[in-house]
Parts: sequence; C-alpha cells; structure tokens
Amino acid sequence: MATPLRIGIAGLGNVGASVFRLIKANSDILSARAGRDIVVTAVSARDKNRNRGLDLSGVSWHDDARALAADPNVDVVVELMGGAEGAAFDLVTGALKAGKNVVTANKALLASRGGEVLAYMGDGKGAIAFEAAVAGGIPVIKGLREGLAANRIHAIYGILNGTCNFILSTMTESGRDFDDVLAEAQQRGYAEADPSFDVDGVDAGHKLSILSGLAFGCVPDVKNIELKGIRGVSALDIAFAAELGYRIKLLGIARKTARGIEQSVEPCLVPQASPIAAVGGPLNAVYVDGDFVGKVLLMGAGAGGDATASAVVADIVDIARGQALPLMGVANDKVGALEPADIRAREGSFYLRFKVLDVPGVVADISAILRDDKVSLESVLQRGRDPGQPVQLIMTTHETREADMRHAVDKISALKSVMETPHMMRIEEFKG
Amino acid sequence: MATPLRIGIAGLGNVGASVFRLIKANSDILSARAGRDIVVTAVSARDKNRNRGLDLSGVSWHDDARALAADPNVDVVVELMGGAEGAAFDLVTGALKAGKNVVTANKALLASRGGEVLAYMGDGKGAIAFEAAVAGGIPVIKGLREGLAANRIHAIYGILNGTCNFILSTMTESGRDFDDVLAEAQQRGYAEADPSFDVDGVDAGHKLSILSGLAFGCVPDVKNIELKGIRGVSALDIAFAAELGYRIKLLGIARKTARGIEQSVEPCLVPQASPIAAVGGPLNAVYVDGDFVGKVLLMGAGAGGDATASAVVADIVDIARGQALPLMGVANDKVGALEPADIRAREGSFYLRFKVLDVPGVVADISAILRDDKVSLESVLQRGRDPGQPVQLIMTTHETREADMRHAVDKISALKSVMETPHMMRIEEFKG
Repeated sequence: MATPLRIGIAGLGNVGASVFRLIKANSDILSARAGRDIVVTAVSARDKNRNRGLDLSGVSWHDDARALAADPNVDVVVELMGGAEGAAFDLVTGALKAGKNVVTANKALLASRGGEVLAYMGDGKGAIAFEAAVAGGIPVIKGLREGLAANRIHAIYGILNGTCNFILSTMTESGRDFDDVLAEAQQRGYAEADPSFDVDGVDAGHKLSILSGLAFGCVPDVKNIELKGIRGVSALDIAFAAELGYRIKLLGIARKTARGIEQSVEPCLVPQASPIAAVGGPLNAVYVDGDFVGKVLLMGAGAGGDATASAVVADIVDIARGQALPLMGVANDKVGALEPADIRAREGSFYLRFKVLDVPGVVADISAILRDDKVSLESVLQRGRDPGQPVQLIMTTHETREADMRHAVDKISALKSVMETPHMMRIEEFKG
Repeated sequence: MATPLRIGIAGLGNVGASVFRLIKANSDILSARAGRDIVVTAVSARDKNRNRGLDLSGVSWHDDARALAADPNVDVVVELMGGAEGAAFDLVTGALKAGKNVVTANKALLASRGGEVLAYMGDGKGAIAFEAAVAGGIPVIKGLREGLAANRIHAIYGILNGTCNFILSTMTESGRDFDDVLAEAQQRGYAEADPSFDVDGVDAGHKLSILSGLAFGCVPDVKNIELKGIRGVSALDIAFAAELGYRIKLLGIARKTARGIEQSVEPCLVPQASPIAAVGGPLNAVYVDGDFVGKVLLMGAGAGGDATASAVVADIVDIARGQALPLMGVANDKVGALEPADIRAREGSFYLRFKVLDVPGVVADISAILRDDKVSLESVLQRGRDPGQPVQLIMTTHETREADMRHAVDKISALKSVMETPHMMRIEEFKG
C-alpha cells in the first residue's frame, strides 16, 4: 500500500469537526477505497482551548491557518474557514503555490473570486476540489463535471438553500405565514439571527454561480444573477398555488440560450407532480437537463456537519486515488467569462396575485393592460365577493416575454383599484 | 493537447448508435472536458449492410467484435453487445489482457460473472468502467464509488427497472389491472414480447447485485437475491395502498446487517410522501443511505439509447482524463464474497390482503393466528359487507420478523374461509 495521505484541516467548526471524526470513524473503508491510509496530521482553528470532543493528540496545531500550506507533513489542505477574504484566500492560494491539493467547502471564495483563483492555479501543481461548496453531501459537482460530462447542458434548476426550503415547506404544510415560520426556523437553528443571506437568495446565488460555471465552462459569475428571495411569499400565494396544482420553491435557475446564459434565483411555482416539488424540509436538490441524458435529479441533505463532511472526504478520497480535475471541468486557460443573457428577454408563464377593490370593471381594466402587452391569460380566479372591499384576484398566464409581463404589471400597479404592489412569480414547468 | 483517444465500439444497436452520434455531435465539449479529442476509429456489429443512419466512413469495420481488442488503432473498447456468454466476455477479457480500458453497459456480465472478470483484471493493465450497466444515464456508479466513498453504506433502495415502474405508475394513475397495462407497455415498446426478464424482477436483480457489490466491496452476487416480480400486484392492492397513504413500487433493496447483506427485489408499499414515491413513468432512481451523508436520491432516465450513451461517454471522458478505478471501488484482491443474510430474519411491517368469506369469526380466526406468531396489527380494513360472500380484508402490521409473518400467512392460507392465496407485501419506510 502507498504511503498515507496526510491531511491538514483549517477550521474546526461544525464541518471541520465532522471531517475529523469521519476520517477516524471510517478509516478502514477509506483506506480500502483510497488504496492508502488517510490521516489528519495538522489542524488550525481560532481557539486552541475550546473543547470540541476531538482527540487531537499527535496532531500538529497551527494558530495561523496559513501555516498549513507550508507544513511539510501536510499533503492536502482542507479549507473550512469560509469567507472570500483574508486567511481562507491566502491559505488556498498558498497551498496551490506549494503544489498541494486543496479541498474546500468555500462557496463564497469560488463564487466571487473564481477568476483570481483560476489565475493562481496556473502557477502551481495543486488542484482544488470543492464538492462540499454546493448542496452539502449530494455529489452534484461530481455529477455535473464527470457523471454528465458527455452532455451539452441546457439548464440547471436547484433547490440550493435548505433554510428557504424548510421555511417554504413548513408554510405549505401548516398554512402559516413567512414571519412566523422564520421565527421557528431561527429557534430551531435552521436560520441565522440575521437571515438575509439565506432568505434573500444570496447563498443560493453563490451556489448557482458555481454550478453554472461547471455546466458551461465559465468563471462563476455571481454578479449577473437576478436575485429574489422568499420574503414576499405569503401563505395566500402558497394556498392559491396549491389550488392551481403547484408548490412554491426557491429555485436557482441557469439556462443556456442563444442570447447567453440566464441566471436567476427566485421563488417559482412548480407542478405538484414534478420531482422537485417532492423535495421537502431542509433538503436540497439539483435538477440537470442535458441533451442526451434528459433530466437527472440529485437530492439529499444540503447542509449539516456530517453530510458536508461526506463531500469533503469524498474529495480527499479522489485525491488519494490520484483523481484531480481542472476547476471548471475544462482546462483552466479555456475558462472564459460567462456571457449573461438579459433575463427580461426570457419567455415563461406567470402567476399573478392582485389585491383589488371589488368594484365593477377591475378585471376588465387589468385584462386590457395584459392584452396590450400581449400577455395571454390561462386562468383567472377571484376569491371572495365583497362589493367595494378588497379581494384577491389571481391570474396565470400563457408563455410570455418577461419584459412584457413586468411592463404590464407596472401599469397595473398604478390602477386606483389595485391596493398593493402586485405579486408575480414564474411558473416553472422544466421544459428545458 | 494530448493525442486523440481512439474508441472501438462493439454493437451498434440502440445504445451503440447513440454513442456513435453523441461522440460526433458533442465532439467540441468532449474534447474541452477530456483535454483531448475523442474519436471512434473502429466498430463491429452483426450486419454491416444495415442502414443505421450513421456515417461510418473512415471507421474500420470488424465482423468479429473480438478483433477490436487487438486493433492497434483502438485505445478503449466499448462493449455494447450484452450477454454474459460468448463474444462479449471474450472481447472484455481480451481487451483487458491487451492492457486496454473497457467501457461496458453489460450488467449480466458483471452480475453473473463478476468474480471471473475480477480474476482477469489482475493480469492486464486495463480497467472496466460500467456506469451504463445500472440505471442508464443516472450517474449512480460514480455516485456510489466516488461521490459517497466516505460513507459506510447502510442500505440501497432502487427503482431499477423502467418497465416495471411504467406498469405500476400507469396502474396507479388509471386504476387498470396488470395484464391490461402490460399489453399497452408491450405495444408502446416499453416491454418485451416475453416480459419475464423485466416483470419477474430478474433485470432489477442484476442491477442490484452490482450496486451491492460497489456499496459493500463484494463480488456481485445475483444468486443470493430474493426475487419477486410485479405479476401479483393487482389494481385492488394499488387502491388499498393509496387509501393507506402508500404507493407500490418494485424496489431492489440491499441492506447491511450484523447477519450479513440482505438483498431482495420485490414490490413494496412506500409512503406517498417519500421521494421514491414521486419517481413516475419509466424513470429509475437509486436511494442510498450512508452513515455520514444520510439519504441521497439520484433519479432520471434508466434506459433508452441516448440516456445510456450519456453514461457510456462519461466513462470514456473519465478514461481520457486518466481516471480509472478498481472494479468494485477497492483493490481487486480485496474484493471478497458477499455474505448473504437470511432474508427471513429481517424485521419489517407488512401489508396483507385476504379474500375471505364474509362469515362471523373470520377476522377473529386470522387475528388469532397472527397473535400466535407475535405479529401485531397496525390497521384492519374490511371493504364491503356481504354475508356469506367473498370480501376483501386488508391488514397492516407493526414491525415483525419476516419468518413469523410468512409462517402466519401460511397458516391463514389454510383457513376454510380464506378463498385465495393471501397477498403480502413489505411496507418500506426507509429507516435504514
């Protein structure tokens, strides 16, 4: 058997501690599968004295994570500190320069500094593996970069944020409203005290940009993602969607078109019978549409120390087996900038909800505006009949250009009988 | 860029023709992702003169597929002839001996002669890739052998036969009975004229044995799989299952226990809300339960030329990238025999359906027998009330030992008021 592969772990939080435990607990199967032993020889974390329940005897401690790059007893640097700035960036680039392979769960680094990282990779011999950066334990990076490598990818649809999926799933099951369920998620540790990174779609955007980069061989481009979170989704929308045969999911969507790559993160109505509608609770899923394979769904735990550790250690096993691939699946010097498509030029059907005064002519006024913008209606639903009082008016449209849709909705917004900003969501039928 | 990777394809049926087309249609992305061109240099098939719509100019033709192993212009042999005997076996082993890598979709070969193939692998330098052998385009082999390599696998549940899943899904949607839907499937080309290979679970058994081998590092052992097909599933069972909150799916199940590996293929009741219940039509899915990752589901097209070609060419890209792994994920000489567990010793809950005479005491008689065998009831449902006439009696049980369950059902079978062989299916709650 070959010499052991020596691992240095930077960051002993939730994921780091799980990686440490996994390598110990499953050392027998890891060495059988990798063809060599895998051992942790060095670690770095903020507080040496914190009790993590880990036996660190015989493991070198570095106060400064950057030192792992230079440690002669470390073959592979596992970066689990997170953040695109400072120590994480220095450690990753330092390790690459030293010719070491890097395993990281750092989505922010790849999403917002992917180009810089690629530039550094030219210098050294190391590779970066990052299965854990997207969708936790689900092997989506491997699925895209290797398993579906024969395909021209048309589109990727992802449920990429477990917090949002938990909130929307719970709202769907209980009929409760967003604020109420968010508070519960915070109490149960599924959401942060400041939830905006999750509920505003930022985290999902980071992950989508990485999947996009892999699917289309581009530098991840997080700036050109249309971001819309789930704060605007109400119990009413969920109930009406159900009545129409849909569920509401926060989807990351990346689609290749003749006009470039469309990227968005937004709550969408998805058909109740679609497999992505069945992804409940805090689970994640990635649905890939390729030209030969058709649609493939990968689903599982998208977060949590143990599930994420599974992905980190899978990357380590790959390295131990001598398997390393270019960052974005094509040679580093062939990775170009992503060409963004104008999101408003895409076609799609839409769900609309208006709070209107129940007065004669309101449906006619709204319908006329839609007609003028060439938006054709699929269904109209008025809930409640209460002359002179506010009622809910729900419409779904046939396929239409998003710019026309937005234009019409802006005009409808200005009608006197329309009492709040209209609610508008895409209906995603996964047609590719 | 490196020299082109030269491919020889044996078998130009549905899958072979798709592979040929894919390599041509996606040559640009394949060479970008593989880092070198991939070209088909030689083919072999039964009938040289058949019109397949393929441009074979510049491609060598071999009447005998075995010649591909010796062709100096072939680096990788793609075996798509199928069958465990004869030419396919000779070609695969011949290529290995010649130090060539092999890509195959041949599940029968691996399932029934895995041990022999492993023995041959010792001699040469070639590796065998076989993503296409299980679940068509879904990257399940890669998912198990690499993506989840960090995990001790507890269990695998698979919907591995698209024909059966199409039949059961159609029965569920339409309320029609097995024979009727089978005839439709045959007409639509989803089922063979002789459907037994599919509907009796043989095909699913082959695939399960391969997944089992990978998950547990054993030689695939198709003999020790308890096989039960879907001929016995009636529209009645599907309707009652729905009433109880379940769907019926043909599952391949491999589970690691202290007593060894349990392997079975059988129709099971699965909770309607479980993701595997959402796998409709001819789709396949594999649900893996690992100690760190938890449960991961992979789903997609399990058959069809194009989807299967996606898997074949993904394997070719792996080889072009220099990635080759031992057959069962651990060193060939470490692959041992699978230790089968007695399937009757497993625990589980059950669905029972009895056609009984509606006479006083029949429920009491049946319940007494179940009690004597320590089977505890979860629910009892009698449909119809028709004194002296046959009615349906449905029961579900709590967790019980399968041997006790079978013993009780045999005794119940013998009761005078029980009018046909009782129907019994496992309820699979995916508890690991």
